[in-house]
Amino acid sequence: MTVRFGLLGAGRIGKVHAKAVAGNPAAKLVAVADAVEKAAKDLASAYGAQVCTIDEIEKADGIDAVIICTPTDTHADLTERFARAGKAIFCEKPIDLDLGRVKTCLAIVKQEKATLMVGFNRRFDPHFAAVRKAIDDGAVGNVEMVQIVSRDPGPPPAEYITRSGGIFKDMTIHDFDMARFLLGEEAATVTAQASVLVDKKIGKLGDYDSASVMISTASGRHCTISNSRRATYGYDQRIEVHGSKGMVAAENQRAVSIEVANGSGYTRPPLLDFFMTRYTEAYANEIATFVEAVEKGRKPAPTGEDGLIALAMAEAALRSVKEGRTVKMSEFER
Amino acid sequence: MTVRFGLLGAGRIGKVHAKAVAGNPAAKLVAVADAVEKAAKDLASAYGAQVCTIDEIEKADGIDAVIICTPTDTHADLTERFARAGKAIFCEKPIDLDLGRVKTCLAIVKQEKATLMVGFNRRFDPHFAAVRKAIDDGAVGNVEMVQIVSRDPGPPPAEYITRSGGIFKDMTIHDFDMARFLLGEEAATVTAQASVLVDKKIGKLGDYDSASVMISTASGRHCTISNSRRATYGYDQRIEVHGSKGMVAAENQRAVSIEVANGSGYTRPPLLDFFMTRYTEAYANEIATFVEAVEKGRKPAPTGEDGLIALAMAEAALRSVKEGRTVKMSEFER
Amino acid sequence: MTVRFGLLGAGRIGKVHAKAVAGNPAAKLVAVADAVEKAAKDLASAYGAQVCTIDEIEKADGIDAVIICTPTDTHADLTERFARAGKAIFCEKPIDLDLGRVKTCLAIVKQEKATLMVGFNRRFDPHFAAVRKAIDDGAVGNVEMVQIVSRDPGPPPAEYITRSGGIFKDMTIHDFDMARFLLGEEAATVTAQASVLVDKKIGKLGDYDSASVMISTASGRHCTISNSRRATYGYDQRIEVHGSKGMVAAENQRAVSIEVANGSGYTRPPLLDFFMTRYTEAYANEIATFVEAVEKGRKPAPTGEDGLIALAMAEAALRSVKEGRTVKMSEFER
Amino acid sequence: MTVRFGLLGAGRIGKVHAKAVAGNPAAKLVAVADAVEKAAKDLASAYGAQVCTIDEIEKADGIDAVIICTPTDTHADLTERFARAGKAIFCEKPIDLDLGRVKTCLAIVKQEKATLMVGFNRRFDPHFAAVRKAIDDGAVGNVEMVQIVSRDPGPPPAEYITRSGGIFKDMTIHDFDMARFLLGEEAATVTAQASVLVDKKIGKLGDYDSASVMISTASGRHCTISNSRRATYGYDQRIEVHGSKGMVAAENQRAVSIEVANGSGYTRPPLLDFFMTRYTEAYANEIATFVEAVEKGRKPAPTGEDGLIALAMAEAALRSVKEGRTVKMSEFER
Repeated sequence: MTVRFGLLGAGRIGKVHAKAVAGNPAAKLVAVADAVEKAAKDLASAYGAQVCTIDEIEKADGIDAVIICTPTDTHADLTERFARAGKAIFCEKPIDLDLGRVKTCLAIVKQEKATLMVGFNRRFDPHFAAVRKAIDDGAVGNVEMVQIVSRDPGPPPAEYITRSGGIFKDMTIHDFDMARFLLGEEAATVTAQASVLVDKKIGKLGDYDSASVMISTASGRHCTISNSRRATYGYDQRIEVHGSKGMVAAENQRAVSIEVANGSGYTRPPLLDFFMTRYTEAYANEIATFVEAVEKGRKPAPTGEDGLIALAMAEAALRSVKEGRTVKMSEFER
Repeated sequence: MTVRFGLLGAGRIGKVHAKAVAGNPAAKLVAVADAVEKAAKDLASAYGAQVCTIDEIEKADGIDAVIICTPTDTHADLTERFARAGKAIFCEKPIDLDLGRVKTCLAIVKQEKATLMVGFNRRFDPHFAAVRKAIDDGAVGNVEMVQIVSRDPGPPPAEYITRSGGIFKDMTIHDFDMARFLLGEEAATVTAQASVLVDKKIGKLGDYDSASVMISTASGRHCTISNSRRATYGYDQRIEVHGSKGMVAAENQRAVSIEVANGSGYTRPPLLDFFMTRYTEAYANEIATFVEAVEKGRKPAPTGEDGLIALAMAEAALRSVKEGRTVKMSEFER
Repeated sequence: MTVRFGLLGAGRIGKVHAKAVAGNPAAKLVAVADAVEKAAKDLASAYGAQVCTIDEIEKADGIDAVIICTPTDTHADLTERFARAGKAIFCEKPIDLDLGRVKTCLAIVKQEKATLMVGFNRRFDPHFAAVRKAIDDGAVGNVEMVQIVSRDPGPPPAEYITRSGGIFKDMTIHDFDMARFLLGEEAATVTAQASVLVDKKIGKLGDYDSASVMISTASGRHCTISNSRRATYGYDQRIEVHGSKGMVAAENQRAVSIEVANGSGYTRPPLLDFFMTRYTEAYANEIATFVEAVEKGRKPAPTGEDGLIALAMAEAALRSVKEGRTVKMSEFER
Repeated sequence: MTVRFGLLGAGRIGKVHAKAVAGNPAAKLVAVADAVEKAAKDLASAYGAQVCTIDEIEKADGIDAVIICTPTDTHADLTERFARAGKAIFCEKPIDLDLGRVKTCLAIVKQEKATLMVGFNRRFDPHFAAVRKAIDDGAVGNVEMVQIVSRDPGPPPAEYITRSGGIFKDMTIHDFDMARFLLGEEAATVTAQASVLVDKKIGKLGDYDSASVMISTASGRHCTISNSRRATYGYDQRIEVHGSKGMVAAENQRAVSIEVANGSGYTRPPLLDFFMTRYTEAYANEIATFVEAVEKGRKPAPTGEDGLIALAMAEAALRSVKEGRTVKMSEFER
């Protein structure tokens, strides 16, 4: 069986997913929709797909699944619509910036018994997956403390910030998902601090560009997250898990592994520049997981619930910053 | 000039300082006092010094300076006493577990115009000093986010815990000093979380063995600290400073830099096992700094005030854990 | 334009090239020939190609280029045949084990003005190409000394050894090409030593499994090569170039970049296991270079002459071992 | 017991040994002799020793041992003289540049039953010793191939070259000793190539500044050595041992282990600059080994014979370069 895909949204992340679909022998990109016709056309023609409207994709018998990478404020509506249309849905994170809206959307997904997977790509990175596997294999014993460093190479444009939901819902949300992935236990509390160090415009928009987060679990496990919208040396993506028997860490990635030595020292190149290059394999594995789930009629993960919990953690972090206190996750009923 | 030393306390850290004094051509260990006579004798004879009482050291004309490494609850009394006796004082951290007691002690040091240096050895580690120098040389631009990981190889015995003042005053206090050293700005807030993951006995004593701390400064800089009383792979001591122009980090240290490769992978040896081996050079540099200050009649750093502030941060961390909130350093007047 | 390929030989390396062709948007695999019909069928069906005889491929108008990965003793004949048939030719190294036979073959390629590229894949490895680029960019100044370490994970079966031409023509030949690639100057002399340390069967077949080679150039540059048919830690492929201004080196590659630490030390996984995994990108880039040359009517490199020189160096190494002396490349007229 | 030392030669390496003696609690530097009186005075006064003539040291009852670091052409004479005087002798390598002279000297040492140790400091480097220990512990199985890279930071002055005996006897001689140390088997053949790439003056003096060497043993083990009188990145000292079960390597050493990252990449500092800093611990361990042997009346290693064999290998390398052939060590009878 080949899973036939309609792609909603032909922007930056849409292109990444289109490439992942094209590289998957069990998948085929058949339709692309985008409000900007040129964007849709360019992407469609690159992969031999057709430009369609969202309506056409919804009704097309020849389309099994959709990838939703339209602006965030359309995710929940589209997810509901395609759940009702009987298509399998891969939705970019977050489903919505509002917790309540996500819940109603997930209720409909559940009612329609739709297949929904949320785009937390990092779980599928081979290096991070190998860290998870090392934990599962007992290499570190009981997980005790997780350290996540996640720094973007540079701040996004102001327009992006405005629609992003803020650093916690836009950027840290990936780290919240990684925290859950690595801790192996739900967060009980979230405590955060945030400031504006990189770009004053971000502060004027009410957002932050530098954030630190601490998470605790019921059994006393810890996770710390360090985020910045700036890293002159590339896309800094590190995880480290410390446990009762040892430690496991994933190193940063480079395009080429060379080192030049001279009187100034020993220099390795900067890191891969951003998610499109750093997570190429992760995106391919992510789509492969979705495709396999659709083929076999299984429920894929990360689920809508995973998306909801990460969003609630982002909400908790924001509340923690605003109120200067540790926020209990029990304050957010699911 | 040779600075002649009396050593108060011949325990684990006393031995470390005795060795540092012996290795310094401008210093000489002349007297050792310890409640346990055998300990004093062994150490004195190893370095050609005499066993004395504290009284004798206090009155000896031939002694210029003392190193106080007796139990913590005697530090403040001894500091006052030797300040009055006109000896230069090197006091192991902390001066006292009680902030008020430290303040009265420092007042007397001030009144006596005594020379006092507090033992925050890590500032003198060549690797950490090189990180500080890189910052001073502009290698990372403005400091934005500091990450400190500090893990002991294993938990101390219960007796030690009882007298230690708890993880924040005993262990994290070094990291609080490093945070100030690296941030280049005073902490405005401290937020902490702590739990018992390593040894239940520690919990029964009302202490923690795993802690995470976030610090913020007035200008919005961040520091995170990750502490554990357990690390199967050695004494884990890492710092990393992220700034507007780049990042600088210090690597962990090993006794030997070899790597063995076979079917199981590429393996480097565990880290140096604890502070006595890891910070050998730091202790030597620390004493050298003190000796030079005494010789030249200058005030050495870290000062008593540095000791006081680090202790206040430890107090703040504890309060943060107990009250589940971010604690402002302004709550502690100096 | 799409370059349509016929593949001759559906064995281990044939599969590698088929995959590279399939992943190239400007290329298409249309036909596969192999003496073992099942091998041809399996590979053809995996990529939507047809099973053909060599005759059929030779005559097919719809085939622009062939990849020759049949047994070595057929390479020269097939190269001549397809040169006469007007197809572009990508021939796996070596063209033949006999220098004279290679020369007559290249004469025919020249006479037919055929397009011929020889399969020295390592030049196309991104890491090694980055080393070459660093040299070209002046990062190391004048090249002085090149170090190549190349170790297979394990010895090939006896049948393979018999047909391989021996370690120098089979394995070191790649390093000879890399030496030329990195030295930027032809070898003037070759000196070698070789022994049997891994598998006595290899010795009984008159071959060696462990070899060291020194190369010098007219201007006095050096290259050393270290080869073994055994490496318990994976496929060990390292190059290092030392010059008047500095040094540049390429590190080994792993499937995942994680590190596990415990009481036994810090362990990273073994290396990628062999050329099929280690040089995936190199093979893709190699075919892309060939495809682009065919499209644009340009002569691709490595050329037949490159293949001839590397073979002559292998011959020189063997002579050096047999005669216990430094062999001048001028002993081999081209 | 304290071993009382006379030091012959207060130059660069004399200072290194004086420091090693001063740092050893079981040793004491009591006398220093040097043709340049100021050099002797400065060194003597730094360590509380007396300036003496060689005659005085020879006759002094209060001197147990001498360290010979005078110019090479005096080593053999002085060794004989102090052997006859009944002093334990630590002689810097080489004993003489002439094999015959070394043999007659060693005959006298034997006849006098004198204690003689030759200064191959690298065996005592903790990292290289750890490599040897890993081999002894079976970590790599049977040793198969040893790789040694040894590059000086820059060429010595012409005067030094003139007296040095040439690159093989001056520089590679250390690597020949390391080859024996690591191979665990005597060299059967030596093959070398050498050229002038760094400094033409060196060529005019009949010497080389760049050399490559291959060594084979009777059982077929290999060693390659790569030498240069130039390395812009510091004193490059690496060893790697490949065996039937794995590989072990020692990394280069730096003064501080920090890394700075920015848009240009990730940079670690250059290496330690030369033997005085790189081998500080090795020199201390070397003297400690000698002191312990003197104290316990044992014969220390490396022995005079070790010095002789390394010198013969250097002679073989030179002959190999001159005659363009592999030289058998059996050509040099001991």
